Amino acid sequence: MASPSPSPSPSPSRLTRPPVPMKLHISNRQKLLSSLRRHLSDSSLPLHGFVFLQGGEEQTRYDTDHIELFRQESYFAYLFGVVEPGFYGAIDIASGKSILFAPRLPADYAVWLGEIKPLTYFKEKYKVSMVFYTDEIAEVLQNEYQESNKSLLFLLHGLNTDSDNYSKPAEFQGIDKFETDLTTLHPILTECRVIKSDLELALIQFANDISSEAHVEDQVGVFLLPCGDITVEMSFLNRHCSYTCICATGGNSSVLHYGHAAAPNDRTLQDGDMALLDMGAEYNFYGSDITCSFPVNGKFTSDQSLIYNAVLDAHNAVIAAMKPGVRWTDMHKLAEKIILESLRRGGILVGNVDDMMVERAGAVFMPHGLGHFLGIDTHDPGGYSKGMERPKEPGLKSLRTIRELQEGMVITVEPGCYFIDALLVPAMENSNTARFFNREAIRRFQGFGGVRIESDVHVTATGCKNLTSCPREVQEIEAVMAGAPWPPDKVSIYSALHFHNQKKISGFVVQTPNLEMMEILQC
Amino acid sequence: MASPSPSPSPSPSRLTRPPVPMKLHISNRQKLLSSLRRHLSDSSLPLHGFVFLQGGEEQTRYDTDHIELFRQESYFAYLFGVVEPGFYGAIDIASGKSILFAPRLPADYAVWLGEIKPLTYFKEKYKVSMVFYTDEIAEVLQNEYQESNKSLLFLLHGLNTDSDNYSKPAEFQGIDKFETDLTTLHPILTECRVIKSDLELALIQFANDISSEAHVEDQVGVFLLPCGDITVEMSFLNRHCSYTCICATGGNSSVLHYGHAAAPNDRTLQDGDMALLDMGAEYNFYGSDITCSFPVNGKFTSDQSLIYNAVLDAHNAVIAAMKPGVRWTDMHKLAEKIILESLRRGGILVGNVDDMMVERAGAVFMPHGLGHFLGIDTHDPGGYSKGMERPKEPGLKSLRTIRELQEGMVITVEPGCYFIDALLVPAMENSNTARFFNREAIRRFQGFGGVRIESDVHVTATGCKNLTSCPREVQEIEAVMAGAPWPPDKVSIYSALHFHNQKKISGFVVQTPNLEMMEILQC
Repeated sequence: MASPSPSPSPSPSRLTRPPVPMKLHISNRQKLLSSLRRHLSDSSLPLHGFVFLQGGEEQTRYDTDHIELFRQESYFAYLFGVVEPGFYGAIDIASGKSILFAPRLPADYAVWLGEIKPLTYFKEKYKVSMVFYTDEIAEVLQNEYQESNKSLLFLLHGLNTDSDNYSKPAEFQGIDKFETDLTTLHPILTECRVIKSDLELALIQFANDISSEAHVEDQVGVFLLPCGDITVEMSFLNRHCSYTCICATGGNSSVLHYGHAAAPNDRTLQDGDMALLDMGAEYNFYGSDITCSFPVNGKFTSDQSLIYNAVLDAHNAVIAAMKPGVRWTDMHKLAEKIILESLRRGGILVGNVDDMMVERAGAVFMPHGLGHFLGIDTHDPGGYSKGMERPKEPGLKSLRTIRELQEGMVITVEPGCYFIDALLVPAMENSNTARFFNREAIRRFQGFGGVRIESDVHVTATGCKNLTSCPREVQEIEAVMAGAPWPPDKVSIYSALHFHNQKKISGFVVQTPNLEMMEILQC
Repeated sequence: MASPSPSPSPSPSRLTRPPVPMKLHISNRQKLLSSLRRHLSDSSLPLHGFVFLQGGEEQTRYDTDHIELFRQESYFAYLFGVVEPGFYGAIDIASGKSILFAPRLPADYAVWLGEIKPLTYFKEKYKVSMVFYTDEIAEVLQNEYQESNKSLLFLLHGLNTDSDNYSKPAEFQGIDKFETDLTTLHPILTECRVIKSDLELALIQFANDISSEAHVEDQVGVFLLPCGDITVEMSFLNRHCSYTCICATGGNSSVLHYGHAAAPNDRTLQDGDMALLDMGAEYNFYGSDITCSFPVNGKFTSDQSLIYNAVLDAHNAVIAAMKPGVRWTDMHKLAEKIILESLRRGGILVGNVDDMMVERAGAVFMPHGLGHFLGIDTHDPGGYSKGMERPKEPGLKSLRTIRELQEGMVITVEPGCYFIDALLVPAMENSNTARFFNREAIRRFQGFGGVRIESDVHVTATGCKNLTSCPREVQEIEAVMAGAPWPPDKVSIYSALHFHNQKKISGFVVQTPNLEMMEILQC
């Protein structure tokens, strides 16, 4: 292949890595203290005791000494921002004092793993009131209690409604000397995490900026890949991803959680395929979660436009409607309805959309929930507060939250439309829903896969703000894949990537530009 | 910065992804069967029973539904090559028949995680005699035993001498109906893994080829990065790395296991720094483990050359001496001695090298062992056979094996020389070793960090073969970083990368070319 002609240098990225002020975690602790004190007062309980959490531990792979890359437990990260394993943290409810307990490292740590930092280092780094060693926990906390003669620890124990797992309350040598409370802390701390502060929003915005840009570069990169070559689908750099990337093309794009070990993003690109890329970066624990869908050859067919626009219309309508007080269940149904209407207009479905809604036909095409809270976890907790019951109906039962929107929530808006045999076949056989399907049209979409469009949205006082910035309109995507700049004020990245990608048309190959975008996210 | 002038297109990579024949795992099973039958015969025990292993399970992160990317347990991978989680495997010792047990997946797996494959799919994919579901284990194995009326399972339970952890023997509903043997299998299966077949060697060679090329691209990439910028150190794509990358510059290069969560490869490049990059790819479970050290600005100072050549001479001398029958402990001491001699010639040490060896002064500069077995695990097991005792002396006690070399072993050769305060200060104060140090010279090397050179070496019938191919001589490294091709028959990659890297001189930035090399390793 001939050399490309020289192209103008791309402009420097507009993305500036935001500082990570320890103020963020201090304010998280203050928020918890206020909520917890309010709760104790309201319950006529004394403002005494310690919030006490155990941070994450490093894990080895099976019996080997292969150490998995450590990522802090999310509640601990929220309150203390500690990146190292093996810590504990306490907050004195009466005084507000914060205490970290650091592991006492063996002398040879200095040889193998780096300088052994003194306790003052952690006190300064994490802006806490005091730091001790983990083998001093019982003694330190008992000393603090000498006057009141009470020794109550509020431990973290509660259900994660996405995983159905319970968080493991802290354990340490000597805990039997304390009274422990396992029920108070979890719902209060979880609720703190649901509403994001401005400091948190800045990090989520940055993770979105960098991921949005990476998605755009991916679209260009995919376009430059040779279809039919032995290429693979792409993935972000794992170190600072919010989650395992979903990089599906063709029929695989209807596998909602594609990309796992048994389906490892390895399909050969085929001309005419749609691609569905669900990937997001993480920065200082806070994540993003973005999906783009586009044709690998850069040009939508009319069938692809039909499905894509059905989903895009749903995505846009939901964002236009979102504001405090709106029920998420209603947003889910709004998205379903718009998709069903589009499919009816496109001749794929037949009949009355309201009837389809009654029969939950929307869940055949969008079996997952419309979106979920996003923060330190990709599926941030708090979707179901105490007493809220998960719906039972298809589609709705997959909702990770059914709450009313509140100012400060960050939630993904991710409608999708998929052609999944495991759902379509029974629905076409079911006497309640069979009449809605145009079998011939459905057959045309066998192997089509699916489309998902996912943005991260911040609920404001009066409406909402989309934190994600990717080309979304069909024309925008086609233009960007053909070399137009994105965002429009940026120099074309096509020219910047052209030479680099040429190199990769050699049989191995995946686009990489996204990877460099991710690398900054090292924290 | 001005646009670069057009450069010739780089030649396509010479690396061809080797097929992964299931024959490899079949031959691994046959090897185990032969060894195990021989052992049973020698012990006058009947050739009856099943080898029975449990594969790895997917793990979630703490209480969330964040699923960590699954990697198969290594012994299970060795025998069955299964990439999916939740399997069990059995081998009938009498007949040699192999049986896989697959998890019975819930119907909604098809919606969320992909097509539910029939048992015949796994039988064909993994070339085993039979496949059943995991809830049928007890029944299937009992039926097989009906005639002999014996029901003995050889389970995997034994010590990993690198981690000091024990492998967890298989567990399943109904195991209490069987007799189990916990001691026989582990040492025999481990010994099988120590000696690599040609099929295994081909995969390790490929992982080395791709990683060697990636290392070369890294060297060029680092050279193009602006020193003093807010750049970060680099890392390979994690999905198919053998281990967490160590990407250290300056003083960090003396932290032997740098790159973990508390030291996350995030130092700013400084003009004059040495870089130490320890990174290796994995392909179909089999890994590589390669370290390159080089000056970030592309030119060795005389001090850098001194230390670098001390290590290189040790590396080369060991490889020249390696052959079956040679004791690894002797190779370690050979490397130590060459390094000490170089340091003495360079004026850093004073006195008689044999005296230094007696006082174990080599361990002050190279506290780790010379190398370790490499295979499905980066630290492949089998370093200490039954009865072998770990040495107690500094340096030697860190050896991951003390065995005699045998044909078919793959072992890393990774001498290093580091200036580690935690070791130098006590050694200079110790009355037995103080006399060896030129304090002024040692002061000059404060903050220098260290140099490690690591190649993966296959022990052949008459000597050995270095599977790694990176520029090693000072002149080679300087030439490659200045744009010369590597290997010499390849078109310069400097020209190919130049434009791409320019783009990244914008504040964020790390080189990425290595990442694209890695991407092929998706399996």
